[in-house]
Amino acid sequence: MPVHTKLYEGKAKIIYSTEEPDILLADYKDDATAFNAQKRGSILNKGVINCTISSKLFQELEALGIKTHYIDTPTPNQMRVKAVKIIPLEVVVRNIAAGSLCQQTGLALGTVLSKPLVEFYYKNDQLGDPLLTRERLLLLELATVEQVEQVTHLALNINQFLRDFWVRCDITLVDFKLEFGLDSQQQILLADEISPDTCRLWDTSQQTDPDRRVLDKDRFRRDMGNVENAYQEVLNRVLKAVETKN
Amino acid sequence: MPVHTKLYEGKAKIIYSTEEPDILLADYKDDATAFNAQKRGSILNKGVINCTISSKLFQELEALGIKTHYIDTPTPNQMRVKAVKIIPLEVVVRNIAAGSLCQQTGLALGTVLSKPLVEFYYKNDQLGDPLLTRERLLLLELATVEQVEQVTHLALNINQFLRDFWVRCDITLVDFKLEFGLDSQQQILLADEISPDTCRLWDTSQQTDPDRRVLDKDRFRRDMGNVENAYQEVLNRVLKAVETKN
Repeated sequence: MPVHTKLYEGKAKIIYSTEEPDILLADYKDDATAFNAQKRGSILNKGVINCTISSKLFQELEALGIKTHYIDTPTPNQMRVKAVKIIPLEVVVRNIAAGSLCQQTGLALGTVLSKPLVEFYYKNDQLGDPLLTRERLLLLELATVEQVEQVTHLALNINQFLRDFWVRCDITLVDFKLEFGLDSQQQILLADEISPDTCRLWDTSQQTDPDRRVLDKDRFRRDMGNVENAYQEVLNRVLKAVETKN
Repeated sequence: MPVHTKLYEGKAKIIYSTEEPDILLADYKDDATAFNAQKRGSILNKGVINCTISSKLFQELEALGIKTHYIDTPTPNQMRVKAVKIIPLEVVVRNIAAGSLCQQTGLALGTVLSKPLVEFYYKNDQLGDPLLTRERLLLLELATVEQVEQVTHLALNINQFLRDFWVRCDITLVDFKLEFGLDSQQQILLADEISPDTCRLWDTSQQTDPDRRVLDKDRFRRDMGNVENAYQEVLNRVLKAVETKN
């Protein structure tokens, strides 16, 4: 295969081949979509911001022993990653009720959950990424019982790290979505990205202001304005937190 | 409270008080609704048919030791039942993929499941009776862990009985919805009804014809015609099966 053949174009990233068969190049785009791509737009500099935030977080997670697909970032909006077969699940961890959890259960936005809630959604655009029960997930053979257990365990560990990390940024981690993949040894690696596209992040010092607190893709989804500023603000705080620690 | 005060009017039944505080009267209506009452209509004689079918099935279940709210049927469309506090769950047991399971998972209509699937939906019209994961059910405190286990066990036992019963009627039990309630001793009783309103029933001898096989409320939901005939046919077969056995 020629080097840098486009293998796949998703909503926020393009995946290219590289000279090495086990390594792919993820090119982060400025394109933004919401509501299963019914809403489309673009967020200035998002590719660079999300690639940078994700790189930093993947590196921190690797340092804690959590295996990710991350290798390095040859350019500001490109990440070299290990080739994995993505498990077709969106693994969502929730600390505070927001989004579809509120719509589907009637829980009030902002309800603090007594313990983190790990949920699985079927990564399937045609079906609208529906919520899965454990039984449906197994019935559809999207993962094995052991994989579900491993992924749940990993997701809770990642949540523990991320909550603490975002606290250092004066940010409250409401919820986030992870994707996992299997490498050639059938080992589970954290894949995709961790960014304001995939996390709900509330500015802790603005916690009580439902408009000003939002520092994530909800600003785009809900036409709240100041989208680029929010993403840039998150990046600045991440860089500062990483710098302060090291 | 005066005798026969209307306590509650649902989509298919009206509940009245009786002279005895622990006993209620369920009046089965001919009214039919679908899609969370967005579609409304009426099915001639449905009240009598569903009350009769439910009575027969509750009696058979009681004979097997499964506790139900059933007492007796003073008139053809009225059932005296034990007063219970309904657990706000729609407990669905599926043997064959149909309805929302197909829409939400992409499974083809008619796919035979390798084992019965017990699912919980939040009985909440305002939210559109959403699917619940076990974690959401517990988070919302709709039932305790023990109650979920008991109800799952009961639902599977009832499925075992019903599958066999409907086979005697030359009918294939695709799926069905149950509701449970707690009596004054916190004992779980099967409540609501078991009828062509709450079961998907396919005529086994017409199994391959997606139109002719349907003997349940899907005929009303999907404007398939011959709704009354189908309900009457189910009643005839139930009465024959009960008679033959006794």
